[in-house]
Amino acid sequence: MSGHPALTALRDALGDALSTDPTELEAARGDYSGQRRAGVPLAIVHARSIEDVQAALRIATEHQLPVVPRGAGTGLTGGAMGGAGELVLSTARMTRILEVSAADQLAVVEPGVINAELNTALEPTGLFFAPDPASRAISTIGGNIATNAGGLLCAKYGVTREAVLGLKVVLADGTLMELGHRTVKGVTGLDLTALLIGSEGTLGVVVEATVRLLPLPSGSPATIGAYFPSVAGAAAASAAITAAHLRPAVMELIDEVALARILAHLELSERAPGSAYLLVQTDGASALAEAEQALAIIHEHDGAAALTTDADEGERMLAVRRAFHPAMAAAATVLIEDVAVPRSALPAMLAAIREIGARYDLEIPTVAHAGDGNLHPNFLFTGDEVPPQVWDAAGELFRAAIRLGGTLTGEHGVGTLKRRWLEEELGAPQLRLQRSIKAVFDPLGIMNPGKVF
Amino acid sequence: MSGHPALTALRDALGDALSTDPTELEAARGDYSGQRRAGVPLAIVHARSIEDVQAALRIATEHQLPVVPRGAGTGLTGGAMGGAGELVLSTARMTRILEVSAADQLAVVEPGVINAELNTALEPTGLFFAPDPASRAISTIGGNIATNAGGLLCAKYGVTREAVLGLKVVLADGTLMELGHRTVKGVTGLDLTALLIGSEGTLGVVVEATVRLLPLPSGSPATIGAYFPSVAGAAAASAAITAAHLRPAVMELIDEVALARILAHLELSERAPGSAYLLVQTDGASALAEAEQALAIIHEHDGAAALTTDADEGERMLAVRRAFHPAMAAAATVLIEDVAVPRSALPAMLAAIREIGARYDLEIPTVAHAGDGNLHPNFLFTGDEVPPQVWDAAGELFRAAIRLGGTLTGEHGVGTLKRRWLEEELGAPQLRLQRSIKAVFDPLGIMNPGKVF
Repeated sequence: MSGHPALTALRDALGDALSTDPTELEAARGDYSGQRRAGVPLAIVHARSIEDVQAALRIATEHQLPVVPRGAGTGLTGGAMGGAGELVLSTARMTRILEVSAADQLAVVEPGVINAELNTALEPTGLFFAPDPASRAISTIGGNIATNAGGLLCAKYGVTREAVLGLKVVLADGTLMELGHRTVKGVTGLDLTALLIGSEGTLGVVVEATVRLLPLPSGSPATIGAYFPSVAGAAAASAAITAAHLRPAVMELIDEVALARILAHLELSERAPGSAYLLVQTDGASALAEAEQALAIIHEHDGAAALTTDADEGERMLAVRRAFHPAMAAAATVLIEDVAVPRSALPAMLAAIREIGARYDLEIPTVAHAGDGNLHPNFLFTGDEVPPQVWDAAGELFRAAIRLGGTLTGEHGVGTLKRRWLEEELGAPQLRLQRSIKAVFDPLGIMNPGKVF
Repeated sequence: MSGHPALTALRDALGDALSTDPTELEAARGDYSGQRRAGVPLAIVHARSIEDVQAALRIATEHQLPVVPRGAGTGLTGGAMGGAGELVLSTARMTRILEVSAADQLAVVEPGVINAELNTALEPTGLFFAPDPASRAISTIGGNIATNAGGLLCAKYGVTREAVLGLKVVLADGTLMELGHRTVKGVTGLDLTALLIGSEGTLGVVVEATVRLLPLPSGSPATIGAYFPSVAGAAAASAAITAAHLRPAVMELIDEVALARILAHLELSERAPGSAYLLVQTDGASALAEAEQALAIIHEHDGAAALTTDADEGERMLAVRRAFHPAMAAAATVLIEDVAVPRSALPAMLAAIREIGARYDLEIPTVAHAGDGNLHPNFLFTGDEVPPQVWDAAGELFRAAIRLGGTLTGEHGVGTLKRRWLEEELGAPQLRLQRSIKAVFDPLGIMNPGKVF
């Protein structure tokens, strides 16, 4: 163990919850972005309780030790990566579901509960936790809150912010703060719950969450898998579905470059009746009627499509979308990007991605949550390091999104990887204001330094 | 005009937008709570533009002049009341709807647009702005944002926070800040849009809002008017409707004391088959099927009920609920309260209201948004001033709500009237934190001083 004086204090206070195991420290340098910090963190705390988190932060404050809050490490922008001289504070082992109230349609959970595991536990109640990032099988609720995670269902069911009623948060000095309510409504003072959601560990550590549950949609979902001659046609069909005021639970668009790789990966290339894909799933009592309307719109837009309420057949249609990440990962190293634009700008953003890809000679397969305008352009390259021209192209892509009235991150967060573009979106005065608010929570600047701000 | 040196500067900068008309100043002392400030404000600015708001705030900062932002003055907790030595800054005349985008399902509005007028303008698009405070015909979007207004539809369609994508805000020093996005998703930095919503004019002045629109539910709503032998039975029925995972758009509960006054006011007393009332309205494609399930539950709970999809008959059922405020106002002076509790605590809160009423010898007719646990106990009294025992009883009622896991304000805000109980709910450490955040936005403390904090 290194001789940092804080480590002795941490060991005394936390015992076995403190680890300096080299394998664990090595893992904590990285996340699912594929990137890693240059140095190795000092130590990692595997907090078992709120008291552990408080003790770690009190000692960190005393020693002005930088702290990196971390959940399952599935982030895509480096927000939870620990570097040299930093203490990683993991809440991944705080995995208890403390309460499920069917009457109040809420659950109280520790931050390390895995998103999908909460939903499995909720099954007998007929309720569900709506945020469904693609990482739902491996990401924690605490991490979902830190990034205001989205997912496939957001256009209909909202993002994480809409699903959190209250939080317990430990501040940099170890103070435990209870924010928000157990109630659906509440306007007592400033909405600090909402402020914490998406703050990426820069304001405090979420140690408990009271989350809102929704009744599971009744009946069987109806699913449409539609092939189009071009992504422009698929985008036009998705816009027409939105314009018809249908509200699919899922509406996913896959562009030509991505679909070609997916079909090759699934060995389906010869059977595909088109070069771009639109997946639509409706749910609830009028699922079939809505899907029939959507199907008619797809046909009007030259889509070759099938509609099903059969679970297995629906699963085969979903499999095309689910194969996106495996197909990309099988082909190359991937930088997964995450811009969002107003829905009407989806075609323009897709065109911008294609133009940037051509100019930089890069393959940028793209999947989009078409119902909410959130696109994930994936940059493919070889080797472990993101090449400079990929960052240059990504920078152009972010600027294109901002110019179209959008944002450089829809649901993954800023972390370390998008910091350099933050001011372009927020402007200098708002960035100053945000930094001043951070300083109120964290006057010594020990909470996740170098992330976001 | 008084000799305050700021007034000369304001007149020079704002011309006719500055008023010291005694009638206007007198009106700005009060709001719909029936209360008024002891003194008369210095002047009122009727801003016509963002630039007017910026000019007023720059001059106010220069002269350290307290500023009270104000919309239509329909608040119920004194948040927009101006007092001696204060400048009232009204955005009520900024009434333009700047944009409606059907494709992006959003509208961009000035803050003085009346809630119901926005919805009237939206009718041709088949979209609507969901927040529907009871004041919707007279309250402004800016005021709805300042208080995070709720209403009857919240359990299904969310509160104002869920309906706002972005804001333009002028800070105390006149800086214009653009917060949030035109996109459904966005996690770039701290969510200052959410922080501003419900901040009651203490952080800045909302001068433009980009609001989210939802497709109007299809088909005709189905309405149930149900009479019960007691409010306990009505509350049990509403809990059972929620437990059955039905999601009525509207579910309003009226207790015995309130119903007796309403029926007398409507001259319907002899025909009512019960002493408490539950109004349920379902909407969307499965409105009738959901209402039939709700009706069966109501019958199981000894409710005498009728179900209709006829608009006129539905309107007659709604009329009982709509008559609540007129019936109370016809009877006495009213202090409208606004606690919220977890839905499971609704019966306990109703019992607490009855017990407090009996102990203080006060009539406290109550209506509740049963779908979300928000109750409006109304204190009836004579004379213009709220008698001390009414405040004492209200204080007990707030404490009971907090004890039951609830809050002292569900949707009206804190304003001046609930300040004294704020620390009991938030605790001293959170209140200090909130005050420090306010100081970042407003270092001189000129924004709505004496409100909330």
